[in-house]
Amino acid sequence: MAHSNIDKSLRDLLLGNVRSVPNFPKPGIIFKDITPLLQDRYLLELTSRLLAEPFRGAKIDFVAGLESRGFLFGTNLAQDLHAGFVPIRKPGKLPASTHSIEYELEYGTDSLEVHTDSIQSGDNVLIHDDLMATGGTSAAASNLIRKMGGNIIGYSFVMEISALGGRRFLDQNLPVHSLLKV
Amino acid sequence: MAHSNIDKSLRDLLLGNVRSVPNFPKPGIIFKDITPLLQDRYLLELTSRLLAEPFRGAKIDFVAGLESRGFLFGTNLAQDLHAGFVPIRKPGKLPASTHSIEYELEYGTDSLEVHTDSIQSGDNVLIHDDLMATGGTSAAASNLIRKMGGNIIGYSFVMEISALGGRRFLDQNLPVHSLLKV
Repeated sequence: MAHSNIDKSLRDLLLGNVRSVPNFPKPGIIFKDITPLLQDRYLLELTSRLLAEPFRGAKIDFVAGLESRGFLFGTNLAQDLHAGFVPIRKPGKLPASTHSIEYELEYGTDSLEVHTDSIQSGDNVLIHDDLMATGGTSAAASNLIRKMGGNIIGYSFVMEISALGGRRFLDQNLPVHSLLKV
Repeated sequence: MAHSNIDKSLRDLLLGNVRSVPNFPKPGIIFKDITPLLQDRYLLELTSRLLAEPFRGAKIDFVAGLESRGFLFGTNLAQDLHAGFVPIRKPGKLPASTHSIEYELEYGTDSLEVHTDSIQSGDNVLIHDDLMATGGTSAAASNLIRKMGGNIIGYSFVMEISALGGRRFLDQNLPVHSLLKV
């Protein structure tokens, strides 16, 4: 279901519109910036459609988008798949009652929150973010959603940095759809 | 062009799905939470469509969405209006070269940034955010876009807190479309 089948020329077109910014947010990191894909009206629509493609026909109650770049294509993806959209945010950003989960970073810990009245037991959830790097945030979001009784049906990323091996932290039985890989 | 024409029952339905959270983010403030409109698959689509309605037929190059709740419906709005989407962010969030503008808050100042390679001179821009309260952020975003030579063609908000009079800080000749008002 979730195998990307877009041909090479289309993939090259999209890849050419992801900007690599060296030393952002800190020295030694090459940041993958998807804003050029958003700025172009044709690429915005094309990217949104291609993100939805592998999950058409799946029963999806919610797309859960990770703060904050997962909000960008995440709401289009939700609307296209006729699902609701649930934002998963950093601490203190969601105003009502939340569930939260703490997870390890390279140095220290961080946490994620979600409104308690969003995902309910048995709901089918697709997790979306712009980028999968180490997979830590996506794995934490998965644990948070499972804690609520949600049933994760797959992962959707605009881009995956394959060398970082983030997939090993995600459920091996679930489809992971990365539109672009570097 | 930008007069909201949705009938009362529809407006009441949407208003019933905006949650008022007292004392968030600080004591004395009643926060207007639009996440229930995102969570419901039908309301997500309905809200997106109604946001686009007043601007159909207008020549719009970009929807500029204000961090970060303006990213939520902003990308759907852009796609629906066949425009590109430009995120306007808080300092240090955009990775490439930016223009920035400082603006006054009740106590102190804040600033907004936008990528220099996004809006160009003569581009038509629709500004979007989830909420207009005092109008300060929208006014600052307007000044930032005008500094780049952008031509603001209107404002789109999911909700406006009329009593705060934010409209007086926006250009009086431009359409301001607030789907809901309290």
